[in-house]
Amino acid sequence: MYFSSDNAGPALPSVMARVNAANTGFALPYGADPIMEEVRAAIRAIFEAPEAVVYLVATGTAANALALACYAQPWQMVFCSQVAHIQEDECNAPEFYSGGAKLCLVDTPDKMTPEGLHARIETEGVRGVHGGERGPVSITQVTERGSVYTVEELNALCAVAKSYDLPVHLDGARFANALVALGCTPAEMTWKAGVDVVSFGGTKNGCLGVEAVVFFDPAKAREFELRRKRGAHLFSKHRFLSAQMAGYLAGGAWLEAAKSANENAAYLVAGLRAAGAEFLHEPQANMVFTRFPRHIHQRLHDAGAAYNMWEPGLESGAPDALLAARLVCDWSITTDQIDLFLSHFA
Amino acid sequence: MYFSSDNAGPALPSVMARVNAANTGFALPYGADPIMEEVRAAIRAIFEAPEAVVYLVATGTAANALALACYAQPWQMVFCSQVAHIQEDECNAPEFYSGGAKLCLVDTPDKMTPEGLHARIETEGVRGVHGGERGPVSITQVTERGSVYTVEELNALCAVAKSYDLPVHLDGARFANALVALGCTPAEMTWKAGVDVVSFGGTKNGCLGVEAVVFFDPAKAREFELRRKRGAHLFSKHRFLSAQMAGYLAGGAWLEAAKSANENAAYLVAGLRAAGAEFLHEPQANMVFTRFPRHIHQRLHDAGAAYNMWEPGLESGAPDALLAARLVCDWSITTDQIDLFLSHFA
Amino acid sequence: MYFSSDNAGPALPSVMARVNAANTGFALPYGADPIMEEVRAAIRAIFEAPEAVVYLVATGTAANALALACYAQPWQMVFCSQVAHIQEDECNAPEFYSGGAKLCLVDTPDKMTPEGLHARIETEGVRGVHGGERGPVSITQVTERGSVYTVEELNALCAVAKSYDLPVHLDGARFANALVALGCTPAEMTWKAGVDVVSFGGTKNGCLGVEAVVFFDPAKAREFELRRKRGAHLFSKHRFLSAQMAGYLAGGAWLEAAKSANENAAYLVAGLRAAGAEFLHEPQANMVFTRFPRHIHQRLHDAGAAYNMWEPGLESGAPDALLAARLVCDWSITTDQIDLFLSHFA
Amino acid sequence: MYFSSDNAGPALPSVMARVNAANTGFALPYGADPIMEEVRAAIRAIFEAPEAVVYLVATGTAANALALACYAQPWQMVFCSQVAHIQEDECNAPEFYSGGAKLCLVDTPDKMTPEGLHARIETEGVRGVHGGERGPVSITQVTERGSVYTVEELNALCAVAKSYDLPVHLDGARFANALVALGCTPAEMTWKAGVDVVSFGGTKNGCLGVEAVVFFDPAKAREFELRRKRGAHLFSKHRFLSAQMAGYLAGGAWLEAAKSANENAAYLVAGLRAAGAEFLHEPQANMVFTRFPRHIHQRLHDAGAAYNMWEPGLESGAPDALLAARLVCDWSITTDQIDLFLSHFA
Repeated sequence: MYFSSDNAGPALPSVMARVNAANTGFALPYGADPIMEEVRAAIRAIFEAPEAVVYLVATGTAANALALACYAQPWQMVFCSQVAHIQEDECNAPEFYSGGAKLCLVDTPDKMTPEGLHARIETEGVRGVHGGERGPVSITQVTERGSVYTVEELNALCAVAKSYDLPVHLDGARFANALVALGCTPAEMTWKAGVDVVSFGGTKNGCLGVEAVVFFDPAKAREFELRRKRGAHLFSKHRFLSAQMAGYLAGGAWLEAAKSANENAAYLVAGLRAAGAEFLHEPQANMVFTRFPRHIHQRLHDAGAAYNMWEPGLESGAPDALLAARLVCDWSITTDQIDLFLSHFA
Repeated sequence: MYFSSDNAGPALPSVMARVNAANTGFALPYGADPIMEEVRAAIRAIFEAPEAVVYLVATGTAANALALACYAQPWQMVFCSQVAHIQEDECNAPEFYSGGAKLCLVDTPDKMTPEGLHARIETEGVRGVHGGERGPVSITQVTERGSVYTVEELNALCAVAKSYDLPVHLDGARFANALVALGCTPAEMTWKAGVDVVSFGGTKNGCLGVEAVVFFDPAKAREFELRRKRGAHLFSKHRFLSAQMAGYLAGGAWLEAAKSANENAAYLVAGLRAAGAEFLHEPQANMVFTRFPRHIHQRLHDAGAAYNMWEPGLESGAPDALLAARLVCDWSITTDQIDLFLSHFA
Repeated sequence: MYFSSDNAGPALPSVMARVNAANTGFALPYGADPIMEEVRAAIRAIFEAPEAVVYLVATGTAANALALACYAQPWQMVFCSQVAHIQEDECNAPEFYSGGAKLCLVDTPDKMTPEGLHARIETEGVRGVHGGERGPVSITQVTERGSVYTVEELNALCAVAKSYDLPVHLDGARFANALVALGCTPAEMTWKAGVDVVSFGGTKNGCLGVEAVVFFDPAKAREFELRRKRGAHLFSKHRFLSAQMAGYLAGGAWLEAAKSANENAAYLVAGLRAAGAEFLHEPQANMVFTRFPRHIHQRLHDAGAAYNMWEPGLESGAPDALLAARLVCDWSITTDQIDLFLSHFA
Repeated sequence: MYFSSDNAGPALPSVMARVNAANTGFALPYGADPIMEEVRAAIRAIFEAPEAVVYLVATGTAANALALACYAQPWQMVFCSQVAHIQEDECNAPEFYSGGAKLCLVDTPDKMTPEGLHARIETEGVRGVHGGERGPVSITQVTERGSVYTVEELNALCAVAKSYDLPVHLDGARFANALVALGCTPAEMTWKAGVDVVSFGGTKNGCLGVEAVVFFDPAKAREFELRRKRGAHLFSKHRFLSAQMAGYLAGGAWLEAAKSANENAAYLVAGLRAAGAEFLHEPQANMVFTRFPRHIHQRLHDAGAAYNMWEPGLESGAPDALLAARLVCDWSITTDQIDLFLSHFA
């Protein structure tokens, strides 16, 4: 009953198999390995973007911070949701990598609206050099509250950015979960909507630790490579990053894994709903924010269930007090585990 | 015949086995996994340092830059050899992570001498705020030219640093190769000599990508953790870093690997010497800087040997022109490969 | 009729006289000039803080950014109003000087309340290394909307900061204007309330360009000196900064200047009120945010009045449309000018 | 007998007069003052560069660090003499402002030679992303050892830079002293030779604290303005910077001041030579590095002469021991003072 995060589960068999297979003989270091050729081709094909440049790093924060740094000058603003991962969970890495750019937060409990983004952009960049310049827009897909922007919503947000001539970054730590939720193509969710650079997550959906950064504008390639090395994120034995990503993409393993995670989350949601639980946000991918009585939380904890309390109060309070929790289904969760979890609501 | 680098070979069987074994079920992320407990205990035991704090990152540059940043204020100088890895091969990562500290180079073709270090330190920090402050000393062991500081030499360098009350960092990307070359203990090569923090390399000697940063002063723990996350070097699925290091240390695999690499390098050196080659530096670990005729280089290249030319001229010139090369033996190189390589000298 | 800003007026006669007097012979550079001794003693006396360390820089942004950098680690949050000068008008200088600290904004149209500050702090620093650490609180006195925190309010804000063990910075670009508005002592407005470091403004209130940074904790001295030089804010011919500040403080010239500015602002407010203008914030020092009909704006502009429109619409719209303006009285404004300005309302 | 530095003397009468004249009424802040228009036109005329963009800052370190930051990416190398001011006397400001670029030092006791520069550049930028990229060349004119590059030498150094497509910065903290020493035009000493950006010093040669940064490529304007504000170097009451520079340039006051300083230095050199002193570098502008017996140093110190000892030993040693000193003549030094100084050699 492990619902704490999709960053705590195992790697996909296809990923691990490919890593093992890669562990033979010598391979050119620093991204010149042949597996990376294969990964590059695969990602270009997936994104229908034959000119795209593709790089691998090992953490989602590295992907985001490096991608943004290529678009955000130190005197610029990065526009994002106030609950974006880059704002809440990266310990100022975007500020560090950009040399001190400022995150300008769109005031929203979850998804940004085009109107909210427009209003926020409108207030910045109007004071000459005093207030700095407008910079990139960063969109988190799946959001940190488990919501998924529709393709229409992505188009609308990008249109706002483009109306100010601002580049757009997509933090796709849960890219696959969003994709299968929407049933659209990677191209529709990115460059066709107006996205310039994507953090294409692998770690949360079944890799050991690998994320791709995909630039649709090849002109950014050299700068990224220098920033990656300077940030100490260039792997010498790069084949082990390549192999993870190759195993992740091969045969659509990534889509299967996300489909499984999302379906299990839906199964969990259905069970919770039947048990009378409330939902803070309508679950759309593999994350569930739900509220139910304290005495059930207590029962689950006693039974060894692992998940993050989203509201305090577990330690004391009325047994019927409703407390929120975040439940995340990773690719490896089973319906048996979910059934066991739900059994405590009876 | 792959002698290009020890960062291009495969991982040790013990490392890969442990990584595979770790790939089951859920594990707490971000370094709270149980394998990290085991690694911490093992490294403390190896270093005879029960108070040491131990962290894992995935690249040697990350280990160096983060370790140094904990000791180098932005207005300070870091003293190192002019051929140190942090100076030559990290694309300004130390400057980036420290917020702009300056590397002050000791003018030497290879190892720093206590006199040279003293002279360099003496010229800095004498201009009040104008020239900034003296900061940490960084020693590369094995050096980038394949030399190994003796324990006496390390003691003498640290004594110079301590006479100015400066902390000492040891870049041990090839820590194991140095250790087996010296036959001393890890403690003698580090804290007993006066070293404050070590980059304890795993990648070059048989891991996929993992390095430990070992602080002998536990007071640095919190700062490192924050810097690591801010630098985007904190792994969520940290168990896969832990497992590498656990497999690396288990049963002395790391020492065996380094012993093998060093012995093979010695075997290669003996063969080269017999064939009349010269040596730029006396080989002491697993790196060989040697000079031999261009026509032999040509023959080796035609036969598919891979190594770095250290001097230009391969493309044209007199057949007997002596050209230098760097040959690195990793743990997986075989005497068969070396024999094959040497056969082209006949 | 110049009400654009208090940074566009001339220097006080006492300031200019002292600068002229200082222009003779040689003087030790970099702050070792004898006038600086006098300034240091004067500021310590004014603040009743014999241990305080005092430095001069030439711009308010330098004072703020350097003072904050001494208290904000790169992985920390700085708490301030969303309309603070450090947020809106310093082009990311605080982020630059701190190495990438994040400004966390208290959502308020003007002054922070203790409750608002508490709520904001409470949401940060709760995610371990992921979200970074809580850092200093910065209070702007006079606020950018012309309001003045009472001594009680300052005490309450500092108490919130201290309850989290956080240091407090006071951006006193208009320190004198606030002081004479409150009628309290500098000590009451700073260290007695719990402020750790003050940007003590001179420029806006009658200097050419000088601000003092006053640390009540002498332990910060060395770090500030190094940061100041590294930031290129250490003047060689420092006596000309010292002389400005000496002339500013001598005989209470600074208090007279602020009193004059505040009184003239009050005079302007009275006239505007009589003319039916509205006020966005109740004016408390030398800044007036007021709203009146577009046709009067037009008349004033035609007559050469200079001030910042706070709301757009001057170019077109109904003549009776109410549009906001910011009017600032500097020390040199005259009642004649104000009368002339008000005459256009008739 | 004040020969410590040309940063410790008074301001020129023409400078102070203009500052006083500027102190009336209101003026647009932040560089929009009418005097800046005049300064811009004057500097463009002086440099025969009608397209040049011109900015003012208050310190030489600010001019250098900001100018370089516009040309040096964080992952690049800045090439300069190992005794350059940016290396020795700016407390890592160039590293700070550039975001961590590395200074690569040309090993020379004073002036760089084209061969030395070429050799240094040649060793960098050859390691792909590992070693970072080659960046701007910075030339100090007058050097920190009092030497002046001839126009031919400047042309040759710039030609080396241009052969690598690298931009060139000239640190002209003593621009005027070099110019009158050479008898060439400002254009010949800068853009005609291949210089892209100049720190045009005012402070050392008779201003209170002002330096111009002159870009011959107008495309750099916007970036500089943003960097200047972000660095906290944009003055609100900018007219007082403009007025200094206007008074400095008016009627050739700057050239007269430098001529006087250089002539007095030559007079001092002649006297020293006659008295048997040695010279470490052949004096060419207003700085003199000379060696004479300790007992004369002692006599001078007892008589109140102020200058920097360049070699230790004043406190003890043989009376005849030769010790070096740095003697700097500023514009205000008089032959009487020099005669008095020289009288102690008798």
